[in-house]
Amino acid sequence: MARIVMKFGGTSVADLDRIRNVAERVRRQVASGDQVAVVVSAMAGATNQLVGWCQALSPLHDAREYDAVVATGEQVTTGLLAIALQALGIEARSWAGWQIPLLTDDSHGAARIQSIDASGLIARMERGQVAVVAGFQGLAPDNRIATLGRGGSDTSAVALAAAVAADRCDIYTDVDGVYTTDPRIVPRARRLDRIAYEEMLELASVGAKVLQARSVELAMKERVRVQVLSSFADDGQTNRGTLLVDEDEIVEKEIVTGIAYSRDEAKVTLRHVPDRPGVATSVFGPLSQARVNVDMIVQNVSAEGATDMTFTIGRADLPRVIDCLERERANIGFATLLTDSDVAKISVVGVGMRSHAGIANTMFRTLAERAINIQVISTSEIKVSVLIAEDYTELAVRALHTAYGLDA
Amino acid sequence: MARIVMKFGGTSVADLDRIRNVAERVRRQVASGDQVAVVVSAMAGATNQLVGWCQALSPLHDAREYDAVVATGEQVTTGLLAIALQALGIEARSWAGWQIPLLTDDSHGAARIQSIDASGLIARMERGQVAVVAGFQGLAPDNRIATLGRGGSDTSAVALAAAVAADRCDIYTDVDGVYTTDPRIVPRARRLDRIAYEEMLELASVGAKVLQARSVELAMKERVRVQVLSSFADDGQTNRGTLLVDEDEIVEKEIVTGIAYSRDEAKVTLRHVPDRPGVATSVFGPLSQARVNVDMIVQNVSAEGATDMTFTIGRADLPRVIDCLERERANIGFATLLTDSDVAKISVVGVGMRSHAGIANTMFRTLAERAINIQVISTSEIKVSVLIAEDYTELAVRALHTAYGLDA
Repeated sequence: MARIVMKFGGTSVADLDRIRNVAERVRRQVASGDQVAVVVSAMAGATNQLVGWCQALSPLHDAREYDAVVATGEQVTTGLLAIALQALGIEARSWAGWQIPLLTDDSHGAARIQSIDASGLIARMERGQVAVVAGFQGLAPDNRIATLGRGGSDTSAVALAAAVAADRCDIYTDVDGVYTTDPRIVPRARRLDRIAYEEMLELASVGAKVLQARSVELAMKERVRVQVLSSFADDGQTNRGTLLVDEDEIVEKEIVTGIAYSRDEAKVTLRHVPDRPGVATSVFGPLSQARVNVDMIVQNVSAEGATDMTFTIGRADLPRVIDCLERERANIGFATLLTDSDVAKISVVGVGMRSHAGIANTMFRTLAERAINIQVISTSEIKVSVLIAEDYTELAVRALHTAYGLDA
Repeated sequence: MARIVMKFGGTSVADLDRIRNVAERVRRQVASGDQVAVVVSAMAGATNQLVGWCQALSPLHDAREYDAVVATGEQVTTGLLAIALQALGIEARSWAGWQIPLLTDDSHGAARIQSIDASGLIARMERGQVAVVAGFQGLAPDNRIATLGRGGSDTSAVALAAAVAADRCDIYTDVDGVYTTDPRIVPRARRLDRIAYEEMLELASVGAKVLQARSVELAMKERVRVQVLSSFADDGQTNRGTLLVDEDEIVEKEIVTGIAYSRDEAKVTLRHVPDRPGVATSVFGPLSQARVNVDMIVQNVSAEGATDMTFTIGRADLPRVIDCLERERANIGFATLLTDSDVAKISVVGVGMRSHAGIANTMFRTLAERAINIQVISTSEIKVSVLIAEDYTELAVRALHTAYGLDA
């Protein structure tokens, strides 16, 4: 007997047939003797329609009303899945966020979970009742519904798993696990049986869209064992998925676990910035106030009292960044502003890097052999990232996947 | 300054344009200095879709899950209308039933309102905020959402009007008031400026579908001034609607206020029933247990120790009634069971009847002159109803409308 949280996204509950399939999958889990809570998203398309209505009525709509409207999507799915489960003879009931209650802060539209009082829910799970919980939502301090922001259902599932002390949190998605890289680019990419939280966090944040980064962070903090599974594959051997675990649980550590890439990048260079104390603040202070996320930062060595400063940002933020920097031009004192959207970030990730030297150099040499120019480099304890011209993305990912011995 | 509850049904909020129209109408009410609460239904079609999904998954679905699913329709409308009002510069917020809270009994799917704690809502109305309230729903004792049954939004509006001590409850619908009879049958039917609660109750229950009978009962009990208005007509003189008032407030009482009809009837006759004490209970006891609503009842005088018993029921109940009576045949001891679905009930309604004789006779004479046979008669203090062959429905309604001087 284990206690399991199962999470199904919008495509897995897109219509009544798929809801019946989910019910059948839950039934099998219950039949194996487990206590089960299910977290569901809205039926695919429902959230977009509700969001579209809010925006059509007022682009600057009240986030509290947006939450009241949009949270109904998950409420519908919970009720329907509970009915589908009951039709299979499984005792089940739906739970809206406010009923549990799952309490959030007051950041309507992008709330963070504060606490979950799961006692009522646990009591029913222990009596054999399946809890069908609405993802993506909770109750804010103003006694109104708050949503967690897009993709928040993963976070709901992990938080609930922590609150009910679940043995595992199974995230069912449209892929069957986490791969060494994107299989659309590298057909020989391998599914990973296990991956460390830290690695997943790096992979999630650089483009592997399997899990929301926030949910991985939470799983790491709360030590929730998260398993990524396909909601369309059969059970058993063909649907083993990928298990997120503590680094210590991975005995045979690969040096490099995966290659990630992101095309959502833009590069900004400020030429001839005066090389004096405080100049970095004069650049990144205003950007921070404009809520721009700056990623890689490089500052060249000074020549003649001036330097060049290069950094990367999300591509969608580029117009805002240009606007912001031009307004600060006099204050910063740069000569020229150069931008480039045709760039991609390639990252090599692996906890094994901590104990191995030469990982970065393998990357640089591999790219050099393909005549791929490296524009910016940044490193963390378990990651090396480089910025290259976007056209070389696939070539770079394939070459690195082979170079680090990841090919199946 | 008055305090007004405005209620808009599904067709009035069917799409974003109509929701904007409703917002504009509310804006005008606020501009005239009134404190306003708005009760809304789900967007037309939304409830049917949600109900359809529940039924498709399981015809015998859990009413609590049905409620969780179906109540989302109104929740969506409240949020969207609040956004539309804010876009017009009107302060507004949405209220789900559980947020007010509006407490119901535990009859999920057809719950009755138990109490409304409107203090939070009133405090905000007094500060000028429009309360946008989800109709048709409340919070049951099990801390789960309960719906009031189809058409329950009228009842929500009247109950809310009582709870906030509103000066008036304006029910916006797709007709512009209550008529002396159905204008589709009698083009010269007149809109009534005022109608007594008791009259409206009789008219509502016999076929005029303007207001749910339950909401009229509640309005009568709580003495809520209800006004029926068109949500599509312009304001002012062209949209005066019909005001439901206390009988005493109608100075110039018409003897007959309206002619109602219902085709949802079926007639059942038990021939040769033993004429002994307790026989009525042997018939209507089992029907009551089978939750059949019996309307008109007639028992002929006895001849040779036996009698004939005739009564009417809702047409949809006929198969159930036949089944029930056949099972009780030995116990009741009737000889023959006759049924007839081709019948209609025609009712003449008016509080003036209390003080006037001869009203019923005018009806009988008028029908006799058109050679319309009366099958069953029943009377109340303010109503005379007859059962006739369904084919004569329009002829009877028109003749009576003229006979009682109701033609415009």
